Amino acid sequence: MTVSPFDHPVFAALLGDDETASRFSLEAELAALLAFEIALAQAQAEEGVIGADAIRAILSGITTFKPDIAALRAGTARDGVMVPELVRQLRAAIGAPHGDRVHFGATSQDAIDTGLVIRLVSVIARLDALLAETIAKLADLERRFGARALMGRTRMQAAVPITVADRLRAWSAPLRRNRARLEAMLPTLLVVQFGGAAGTLDKLGAKGACVRARLAATLGLEDVPQWQSQRDRLADFANLLALVSGGLGKFGQDVALMAQDGGEIALSGGGGSSAMPHKHNPVAAEMLVTLARFNATQLAGMHQALPHEQERSGAAWTLEWLLLPQMAVAAAASLRQASALADQIESIGAAP
Amino acid sequence: MTVSPFDHPVFAALLGDDETASRFSLEAELAALLAFEIALAQAQAEEGVIGADAIRAILSGITTFKPDIAALRAGTARDGVMVPELVRQLRAAIGAPHGDRVHFGATSQDAIDTGLVIRLVSVIARLDALLAETIAKLADLERRFGARALMGRTRMQAAVPITVADRLRAWSAPLRRNRARLEAMLPTLLVVQFGGAAGTLDKLGAKGACVRARLAATLGLEDVPQWQSQRDRLADFANLLALVSGGLGKFGQDVALMAQDGGEIALSGGGGSSAMPHKHNPVAAEMLVTLARFNATQLAGMHQALPHEQERSGAAWTLEWLLLPQMAVAAAASLRQASALADQIESIGAAP
Amino acid sequence: MTVSPFDHPVFAALLGDDETASRFSLEAELAALLAFEIALAQAQAEEGVIGADAIRAILSGITTFKPDIAALRAGTARDGVMVPELVRQLRAAIGAPHGDRVHFGATSQDAIDTGLVIRLVSVIARLDALLAETIAKLADLERRFGARALMGRTRMQAAVPITVADRLRAWSAPLRRNRARLEAMLPTLLVVQFGGAAGTLDKLGAKGACVRARLAATLGLEDVPQWQSQRDRLADFANLLALVSGGLGKFGQDVALMAQDGGEIALSGGGGSSAMPHKHNPVAAEMLVTLARFNATQLAGMHQALPHEQERSGAAWTLEWLLLPQMAVAAAASLRQASALADQIESIGAAP
Amino acid sequence: MTVSPFDHPVFAALLGDDETASRFSLEAELAALLAFEIALAQAQAEEGVIGADAIRAILSGITTFKPDIAALRAGTARDGVMVPELVRQLRAAIGAPHGDRVHFGATSQDAIDTGLVIRLVSVIARLDALLAETIAKLADLERRFGARALMGRTRMQAAVPITVADRLRAWSAPLRRNRARLEAMLPTLLVVQFGGAAGTLDKLGAKGACVRARLAATLGLEDVPQWQSQRDRLADFANLLALVSGGLGKFGQDVALMAQDGGEIALSGGGGSSAMPHKHNPVAAEMLVTLARFNATQLAGMHQALPHEQERSGAAWTLEWLLLPQMAVAAAASLRQASALADQIESIGAAP
Repeated sequence: MTVSPFDHPVFAALLGDDETASRFSLEAELAALLAFEIALAQAQAEEGVIGADAIRAILSGITTFKPDIAALRAGTARDGVMVPELVRQLRAAIGAPHGDRVHFGATSQDAIDTGLVIRLVSVIARLDALLAETIAKLADLERRFGARALMGRTRMQAAVPITVADRLRAWSAPLRRNRARLEAMLPTLLVVQFGGAAGTLDKLGAKGACVRARLAATLGLEDVPQWQSQRDRLADFANLLALVSGGLGKFGQDVALMAQDGGEIALSGGGGSSAMPHKHNPVAAEMLVTLARFNATQLAGMHQALPHEQERSGAAWTLEWLLLPQMAVAAAASLRQASALADQIESIGAAP
Repeated sequence: MTVSPFDHPVFAALLGDDETASRFSLEAELAALLAFEIALAQAQAEEGVIGADAIRAILSGITTFKPDIAALRAGTARDGVMVPELVRQLRAAIGAPHGDRVHFGATSQDAIDTGLVIRLVSVIARLDALLAETIAKLADLERRFGARALMGRTRMQAAVPITVADRLRAWSAPLRRNRARLEAMLPTLLVVQFGGAAGTLDKLGAKGACVRARLAATLGLEDVPQWQSQRDRLADFANLLALVSGGLGKFGQDVALMAQDGGEIALSGGGGSSAMPHKHNPVAAEMLVTLARFNATQLAGMHQALPHEQERSGAAWTLEWLLLPQMAVAAAASLRQASALADQIESIGAAP
Repeated sequence: MTVSPFDHPVFAALLGDDETASRFSLEAELAALLAFEIALAQAQAEEGVIGADAIRAILSGITTFKPDIAALRAGTARDGVMVPELVRQLRAAIGAPHGDRVHFGATSQDAIDTGLVIRLVSVIARLDALLAETIAKLADLERRFGARALMGRTRMQAAVPITVADRLRAWSAPLRRNRARLEAMLPTLLVVQFGGAAGTLDKLGAKGACVRARLAATLGLEDVPQWQSQRDRLADFANLLALVSGGLGKFGQDVALMAQDGGEIALSGGGGSSAMPHKHNPVAAEMLVTLARFNATQLAGMHQALPHEQERSGAAWTLEWLLLPQMAVAAAASLRQASALADQIESIGAAP
Repeated sequence: MTVSPFDHPVFAALLGDDETASRFSLEAELAALLAFEIALAQAQAEEGVIGADAIRAILSGITTFKPDIAALRAGTARDGVMVPELVRQLRAAIGAPHGDRVHFGATSQDAIDTGLVIRLVSVIARLDALLAETIAKLADLERRFGARALMGRTRMQAAVPITVADRLRAWSAPLRRNRARLEAMLPTLLVVQFGGAAGTLDKLGAKGACVRARLAATLGLEDVPQWQSQRDRLADFANLLALVSGGLGKFGQDVALMAQDGGEIALSGGGGSSAMPHKHNPVAAEMLVTLARFNATQLAGMHQALPHEQERSGAAWTLEWLLLPQMAVAAAASLRQASALADQIESIGAAP
């Protein structure tokens, strides 16, 4: 099944980004959930919440654990989350008497939200590398062609002459600002989620805060109070994703407009047509506009998930799952295509 | 890769609909594209545009055609559409001298848009069957519990007593109207797209209209002038999909509110929790709210694709691909969950 | 205060439509609310729910009624709706013993939703007239310039020659379809809302249905069961509004692209610049794109209001008030600008 | 005309915020535009771009300037922006020989974007004060009721007991983070825009950068290169506005749910009903949900304006005008209602 082009055996090459997409696969999610459970058990062992026998049994059980995917599928259809069935399988794999020590004091949301953040670390590394690469390529174009003349255009009409550097900076400056925004966001975004049934770590008593701090440290995340019904971190990250693709939408739109009559820009490559073999369509530029409008659309949904009722909203939380992974892939794909488009630019502006 | 829960080996059971999703797989799209090419060749043979030898060669070639998926992937990444490379492969498979008669006078958009409409026929049949099923189940609940009393609630406060039938009709009446809207939309929606390079069927000369009429008849679609840059049909269908899931979002929200304290509704099943085994979460009801908000979000993007510039917009067209299939699956999943939720209702309202 | 350009003493001339906007003024709303109360009293008098003395007192009281706007403002801030305070003022104006017969058996939503539909009648008449006018102007352009040649452009690249008529039909055909959609929608949209406190007309007993039928007939609306928590009619109308402005967004985008270098289209008028007096900006064309994207954005919100909980949702209902009036004005403004833009087209395509 | 409830003589008391709205009135915009022109003339006089006679004439002319609003309206309808006609009037008021020294080297966008930022300074001051006030009121509730018990609820089902403080922190923590986000954003947001016709300050030659720096300093803004086609600053601010109202949407939704049966929360005030005088509707809580969903909707449009083509997009720029002012008022109104709602809370949770 490939309803989304991001998952499609053919369209993903056009619209997706394999490396980012791989962080949202079932395999990656299971790995992150197990990493959470291992880190939790270790933290609890260090705090004396569970015993040495238990941690050995848990590590041994998880190391050799093979999930029953069909049962996970059935369990998720019933429970709305994957974790209850996964924990049942894990406990069976670990066996008595230590099985019930895994996931002790935790709830599904702890595993899933922390498991998401664990994966966002590498998603963000990918985005940052692509941002750096695209910024560098635009800087290189500025070095090569920046002094050339270009007709400035306002309201889609010729205005006054500018330089190629002026146009290029309107493409690269937002990327630089977005990179800075992403960096500034990390301490707030890359945080542990650990609250237990309703956010109070009720089963851990006085040891709750210490276990959470150790859990965060083990996973390399910031230690913060539970945020299970406070989704501003994720909506803010979604905004960053849409800022990235939105700014690149301008790059794409500008290049497509420059490529109309061939004088202002020369592009290598370019897409063919089934009816008109002579055409060289500015496909990468068009996809930048597509992905910008896609992420702008999705962002509204991430904000519709902010009114997250009571201690956990099944409805609002699940809405994020339908939106955020695709936004991350769209942003990465947008950077990937922008970088490719920069490579395709053979010349820009009027040669002196 | 499973970025979208609709494609996910686990989450699709919760949020997707396999039958609808199957219409958007690569296999289904390729089958529809080949059905278009076959029907086009037949129509052109009947009109004398291509010869008897050519149609035999084309049918023979397509019947045994095995697409090279890796090359389709590379071609799509380059061209922005699958068809140029697919046609190249088809022509090679058919071979000289008739290979270039396949896809004659057509353009990528003819194959892709008509191929989409071909698949919408069965998507709509699925939706209509699910609408009928859900309406019937709500009618059955009305027969069983309609006369019971329920506290009417306005602005989330107790108002005056109503009957269960009053509440049930607020769930079913929109479904009935949406079913009628869907039916009324079919003559406008289930139409052929055939325009050639820029919509004028320039290569077919005087025979263009006759070929298009035969093509439409062969495919069981309405014959209309090309609409390649006029996307109101698809945006209007997307609106219907969001109306369906939106109305069911009310059903889900109401059931979740009724299930809060257990007196107004009794549900079988219900999702379990990893932290609180005693809980019976109204998962199906929650998913109806999720899917309603998802489709409401996506609809904006389908309308952002209406300013489709000139004779074909790569950017706006591709945006539809990212949105419409998921909206269709979300609407079907919403109906599937609504039907399941109706089944879970063991009683509703105060017993007399 | 003029937060919205649609209300702005300067910007409304660019982005608004006075005639449509006037239907959403406080004066128009009060007039519609009073028309509802009069028609309701008449229907109830005819059905014997209230006496002859009462209807005389009500008509007399409403005829000379002067609302206390400051009190309406304070009442609305407290109650979330205007009607409780308005009814209080009306009852005081009518006086004992008949004052409490006004609004008898009705609730705020009956007055407000029916009052909205009363005003939509003239909003729709305005839209329909503008649709007809714009269609006629595009048909006239086709008569004058349709046979001329134009370069067809796909994916923002020159493709093959088309005629001006081909381009013009891509602008007018959606308008024709949208006009038909609007017409087909009227029996479902122009309907009375009358349900009482929680939709059951509980205070009218057996006479509820008869009163509602007379009320509908008096107001020239269809008689249908209450739909106070079923908002698909309004979301569907919002979709039509966005289809209209969306299709015109294509017209505007195409004209702006054609006007870039001046060869394909000649426009009279055109906006000036504070920095470049030589420029003639295609302002009307640009505004069509702006209004298309505006309405596409708002439409998502109208669909977010579909999960309208229980018998009346204060939150979802009020959301409509923030969106639908502006969407109607944007659609009318879009038609107004499209008609003006058609007038500005002095020539299009290559002269023979 | 009052199409938007934010401008409505009655509804603004429910949904708007007068102080914020006043920053978007025509009067406030004209004042900001004139402040820009004065500061520009002063900066140019200090840099020797214009003479001492010219600056005296400009200051004298602007001080007594009375705009012709009808002509501004007509000019804006023609030009798409208010500035060309405003500058024409200003130059006439100043008269020869110095009239053409006003707005020298500037373009409409310099005046309008800088004029917007000037007004955002006080909008942000208002938001920050409301944030502080609401945070303080929630802290006070925590002091008074924080230790009380409350049933924690997940997925709309009773889960395990929590304290009132746990619930209150889920309302206040996002406000604190959003306040920090707003503060961190100021150096990037409160910046001058000055670029001239196409962003290059072409008329100022070598003095461009110095004039811009003095202009920024005079206005108390940061000095940055022109950003006329780079709209990430405004989209990012819009995101902050939606984060604020979104987090408060959770507060409102929670309170409305708690108020359902009266046990968990006691609210003073509460809205009346025209049909049911006994009701006390949680109107402020509902409006928080409304405003959250409104701003979530609008945010998508602000991001759709990011693909801002070439050196200035009439279409994308104007779209911001339709969205950002209403988002700012919605965020302020949301804070105003949240503060009022906190005041209405007489008790919360179970008394010991």
